[in-house]
Amino acid sequence: MSKFFSNKYKNLTPYVPGEQPKEREYIKLNTNESPFPPSDSAIRIASECAKKLYLYPDPDVKELTELTAKTLGVKKENVIMTNGSDEALNFAFMAYCDKDTPAVFPDISYGFYKVFAEINSVPYVEIPLKDDFSIDVDDYIKENGTVFIANPNAPTGIYLSLCEIERLVSSNPNRIVVVDEAYIDFGGESAVKLVDKYDNLIVTQTFSKSRSMAGARLGFAVAKEQIINDLMGIKYSTNPYNVNSMTAGAGVGALKDKEYFEQNCKKIIQNREWTETELKKLGFSVVPSSTNFIFAKSPDIDGKTLYLKLKEKGILVRHFDKEKIKEYNRITVGSFEQMQTFIQTVKSILEEIK
Amino acid sequence: MSKFFSNKYKNLTPYVPGEQPKEREYIKLNTNESPFPPSDSAIRIASECAKKLYLYPDPDVKELTELTAKTLGVKKENVIMTNGSDEALNFAFMAYCDKDTPAVFPDISYGFYKVFAEINSVPYVEIPLKDDFSIDVDDYIKENGTVFIANPNAPTGIYLSLCEIERLVSSNPNRIVVVDEAYIDFGGESAVKLVDKYDNLIVTQTFSKSRSMAGARLGFAVAKEQIINDLMGIKYSTNPYNVNSMTAGAGVGALKDKEYFEQNCKKIIQNREWTETELKKLGFSVVPSSTNFIFAKSPDIDGKTLYLKLKEKGILVRHFDKEKIKEYNRITVGSFEQMQTFIQTVKSILEEIK
Repeated sequence: MSKFFSNKYKNLTPYVPGEQPKEREYIKLNTNESPFPPSDSAIRIASECAKKLYLYPDPDVKELTELTAKTLGVKKENVIMTNGSDEALNFAFMAYCDKDTPAVFPDISYGFYKVFAEINSVPYVEIPLKDDFSIDVDDYIKENGTVFIANPNAPTGIYLSLCEIERLVSSNPNRIVVVDEAYIDFGGESAVKLVDKYDNLIVTQTFSKSRSMAGARLGFAVAKEQIINDLMGIKYSTNPYNVNSMTAGAGVGALKDKEYFEQNCKKIIQNREWTETELKKLGFSVVPSSTNFIFAKSPDIDGKTLYLKLKEKGILVRHFDKEKIKEYNRITVGSFEQMQTFIQTVKSILEEIK
Repeated sequence: MSKFFSNKYKNLTPYVPGEQPKEREYIKLNTNESPFPPSDSAIRIASECAKKLYLYPDPDVKELTELTAKTLGVKKENVIMTNGSDEALNFAFMAYCDKDTPAVFPDISYGFYKVFAEINSVPYVEIPLKDDFSIDVDDYIKENGTVFIANPNAPTGIYLSLCEIERLVSSNPNRIVVVDEAYIDFGGESAVKLVDKYDNLIVTQTFSKSRSMAGARLGFAVAKEQIINDLMGIKYSTNPYNVNSMTAGAGVGALKDKEYFEQNCKKIIQNREWTETELKKLGFSVVPSSTNFIFAKSPDIDGKTLYLKLKEKGILVRHFDKEKIKEYNRITVGSFEQMQTFIQTVKSILEEIK
């Protein structure tokens, strides 16, 4: 840290992304990427756009915004495209949290919420999950402040029913509820259908997981027009060209290829179910997942040791050094071949330690 | 604006990018884009990267950072790649300005500085340019706070000598000076060579103009390692994957094609000189430009009228409705054919109003 760094950041603890080692080829089950390449039409349109990079992108991201709105069944005025859903979340922290309006989120959830609160110098309240890792909406109804809920939640994978989300949103029309649906396409019903009904709801989603575009950085927020206008004000005050031309093109291509998207989601759900069953056979406790990852612990080996042994054998999963979940690992659901190798490797590790 | 929008932004005036009309094909001389396509190798590598979009980008942007550092003759620890140089500038506003440390910049300069100050809730001081639009370094030496200087400046195009920049940087080692070199490749000597010598200097550059990559959103900052670490802390607290895979690939391709880059800069300089000469023949006052644009006014037609008449005839230039410069237009230097058409059109407009 330099002596010039503003005091407001002296205690900043930046987010730590999942490791991306370069020294060796791993089976990467650690960052919830898709095992499938992006749609051919995404690749084709992105490559076409590369030829026109000398021009600025369309700051309104018009074509992609309209297509996203159409896909979701909302109006284009209800959508803002962002540089990953992280940007949508950061905009929401900027717009709807301040010293008088704390951020409220679960103690076990997407690790970035805390960092967004810190970088924006806003107070935050962490609400403990229940012992079974579920979210009790009543805990949030009691609190003041802007609520951030990942649904399904990460790293647990648990989905909260739309009716519970609605109960939270409707309980207090004077505060914003942000529902971060990064994993919604792998199970569960989106809160997008509630946007028309509530002034105080923001839903964010991403192209990173179910649309195989983590490398492109593309997400969006859906909300009432007035909310989108707030977020647009922040976009045009920080990053007017937030979605580059190639990514915007890839997004259009991905949305047009509905069949490929649905087929990939289906495969992931099948591979997840197979892996859950196999893990249970090996004695694991498996948290019920509605996502493209599995959160599980073994009675025979502690979380960190399993993570390290898997890494030794060429498989990366994600382990969190946090008291409440340190027995667990978060395992991304990859291709069927990857999951077979994963289960075989877990078996051999359990054999070794017997 | 929604009723939920934080009070801190109630007076926010977002940045307005140059218009990108879709209703008609214009000769676009309004946003300082390059008239030349990106390097073939940039297009090729970006297209290759599109196939691997299912993986997250390298958050360290290692290959591109190393190549940028090598190209500039600095160490990789002195470089951070960013989502356009706008992101580098915003990071600098976040890191080095706060309620006790105002931002200081010229009254006529890149319009985004004021917006960055406002979105970050930091006070700012605008220093008037001299009557000839030049920057007097002594005006800044007197002020406390973090200085932002575009060099060459926009929309004037005037370059401040490296020796004046050094005088400013060295005058007060206890404050940061940010030199925004978006246009440096079209004339002038970069302050990058001073980075090794001064703890308090940050230089930002972009791939948007001289490397024909405005659509890709790629920039960088160069500074002492401690400063880069501060900026990295902010990056990992807002946007860890700030450079998407395709853009990182395109950047590598662009840097590898040194010959194409140099040839394009040379062409722009030639076209600029030709256009300046022609404008002067038509009676225009032309501010001496070291950039890929020309700032000029005619004694025969006011700035706004000329802008509107050019637009009517299919040519877009940029006019700023600001008292001090409202007689001027900023004209991007395009291809020779575009500049010939531009001059012909100006001539016909001047004929019409005679």
